[in-house]
Amino acid sequence: MTQADWQAASAALQVPCVLSIGSSVEDYRAVAAAVDVLVASPLGLWDLLPLESPALKIVSLTWAGIDRLAPFDWVPPGITLLNASGAHAQKGAEYVVMALLMLANRVPALAVAQAGHRWVDGAFGRTLAGSHLTVIGLGAIGGRTATLARALGLSVTGVRANPRPHPDCARVVGLDGLDAVLPGTDFVALALPFNAGTDRLLDARRLDLLPRHAGLVNIGRGRTVDENALFDRLDAGRLGGAVLDVFEDEPLGVDHRAWRTRNLFVTPHMSADDPSTVSSSILSILVDNLNAHARGLPMPNEFDTARGSRARA
Amino acid sequence: MTQADWQAASAALQVPCVLSIGSSVEDYRAVAAAVDVLVASPLGLWDLLPLESPALKIVSLTWAGIDRLAPFDWVPPGITLLNASGAHAQKGAEYVVMALLMLANRVPALAVAQAGHRWVDGAFGRTLAGSHLTVIGLGAIGGRTATLARALGLSVTGVRANPRPHPDCARVVGLDGLDAVLPGTDFVALALPFNAGTDRLLDARRLDLLPRHAGLVNIGRGRTVDENALFDRLDAGRLGGAVLDVFEDEPLGVDHRAWRTRNLFVTPHMSADDPSTVSSSILSILVDNLNAHARGLPMPNEFDTARGSRARA
Repeated sequence: MTQADWQAASAALQVPCVLSIGSSVEDYRAVAAAVDVLVASPLGLWDLLPLESPALKIVSLTWAGIDRLAPFDWVPPGITLLNASGAHAQKGAEYVVMALLMLANRVPALAVAQAGHRWVDGAFGRTLAGSHLTVIGLGAIGGRTATLARALGLSVTGVRANPRPHPDCARVVGLDGLDAVLPGTDFVALALPFNAGTDRLLDARRLDLLPRHAGLVNIGRGRTVDENALFDRLDAGRLGGAVLDVFEDEPLGVDHRAWRTRNLFVTPHMSADDPSTVSSSILSILVDNLNAHARGLPMPNEFDTARGSRARA
Repeated sequence: MTQADWQAASAALQVPCVLSIGSSVEDYRAVAAAVDVLVASPLGLWDLLPLESPALKIVSLTWAGIDRLAPFDWVPPGITLLNASGAHAQKGAEYVVMALLMLANRVPALAVAQAGHRWVDGAFGRTLAGSHLTVIGLGAIGGRTATLARALGLSVTGVRANPRPHPDCARVVGLDGLDAVLPGTDFVALALPFNAGTDRLLDARRLDLLPRHAGLVNIGRGRTVDENALFDRLDAGRLGGAVLDVFEDEPLGVDHRAWRTRNLFVTPHMSADDPSTVSSSILSILVDNLNAHARGLPMPNEFDTARGSRARA
C-alpha cells in the first residue's frame, strides 16, 4: 500500500485526515500517541500488540477473513474493528464461477490426464446453465458469486446466518434450512468466515445429503468443511468433484492427501486477491466506512468479535 | 439419437414427416429410394457415399465443424447441406469463459504445481472483469461467448468474415481489421471453422501482435493457429498462457509437445459437446431449418461448400 494508493482512494473522504505510512513496529511507535485510525494486515498487527494508542477508535484490517486474530480479547474496549469484506468480491466470485465451470467440464480429471500425457476420448462434461447452485455464506464474495452465476444461467440458493432476500438468489434460507436444500444441489460453494458457528458446517452427514454428481467449491476457510470426509467421498466417487482454495492447514505439505485426491483441483489460497487492484479496493472500503462514521451511520465493515463475522452479515 | 429424441423435437415440425432410424449402410440402402432428408454424422455419412437417393433434397450433418468432409465434391447437385451450428453454442461458450477465467487465475501453471505436489505462494492472478476479449469467429459459439463474456464484465470485440453489429460486442470488425485489434487484446478466443480462409489465420506474425500478457483459447479447429509458433511463444514467456481444445493432429500422441508446453492447458476436444443435450439440440435445429424451408425462407444452417462455412455466417 502506497501514498499514491491512499491519495487516489482518499479523494472521496469527507473528513480531514493526516496520513502516516510505516513498515515496522518502530514506525508505529513513533506516531502511536496520535493515531485514531489504524490500518494493518492481520500479520502486521500481531507485532503491534498491545495497542498503546490512547486516541485509537478504529482498527481496519486489510483482510476479509480475520479468524487468525481470534480470540479478539486483544481489542481494547471501545474500539471498532473493521475487516476488508468487499475488496475481494469480484475476484473471489470469478474464481467460484471458474471452479463451477471446471467441475462441469471435468477439468480436475483432465489435469491429471495432461500430467500423464493422456488424451481421454469422450470426456465431454456437461452444460452449467440450468444447474442448481447453493452458495453458503452470502457476504460480499458470496453475494457477487450469486450475481455472476445467475448471469450464466444458474439457479442460485443462498444460505446465510440472517436470511433476507438477495436479488440474484431464487431463495435465501437460514442455516437451519441447509439440510433441506443440499439434496437438490448440483454445486455447492462455500464463502464463509471461520468461527464457532461455521466450524465443519459441512460435515460428513451433510456431505452425504448432496447428490453423487454434486461438485463443491470452497474459497472461505478450510475448516468450514470436514476435509477428510470430503476427500473420502471424492476418492470413493460418492461426490462428483471439488475445487478447493483453502485447507485446514496451509500451506499443504508435499505429502498432503489433497494433492492426489480423485477429482480434486487444488489452488494455493489465491482465489480472492488481485494484487493490481486489492490495495485501492481496501482503501476505498475504508473511506466508505469513515464517511459513514462521520455521518453517524453504522460502518458496513464493522466486525462482531463475539460472533466472528461482520456485524450486519 | 433415438425415436424419443425425434418425437420430442418434431413436435414443432410444421410439415408431415415419416422417420426411419438406421445404424448401418444396409439400413440406409433399404430406405434410400424414398429419403428426401438425410441426417448423419460426418463419420457415418462417409460410408453412405455415393448417395443414391433420387428424392434427396437436404443432407443435415450432426456436427458444426464439417471440414473433414471437404472437398465437398461428393454433394450431388441441387442438394442443400446443413451443419449443426447452434447445438454446441452454450456448452462451447461456457468452455471459453472457463478458459478465460483459468488463464486469469494462472490455472495452467497451478495444474503443473499440483501434479508436483507444490504449493505456490503468491500465485494470485488477476480479475477478468474489465479485460478486452477478442472473439474470432462470431457464429453460434462465438456469438454466445460474447454474450456470456459481456455478462461477466468483459469488453468484447468480434471478428468475422462478414462483419455486422452484435448486441454483446462493443464492435465487430472484418478479417481485414484483425491486425489492428490484436495489440489491445487481453484474451483472444478462436471459434472458427477450418477452411482456406482460416488456415493458420493466427500465424507467427499475428501472434506477435498480441501483448505479452495475452491469453489464447481455441475451440474451433487446431489448424486455425500456427501451433508450433504458439508453443514457442508460450515456452519463451512471450504470451501469457493458452487453453486449447483442438489441435492440428488429434488425438495427441503421448510425446506431443503440447503436453509439456509452459502455461498451456490441454483438453481432449470436448469443449462443445454435452451428450445429455446435444441430440435434442441437433434435432431442434433441423426442425427449425425444415420449417423455414417449408415457408420458402433461407435455411439458417445452410452450408456454403465453396467457402467452407455457413452461407450466412
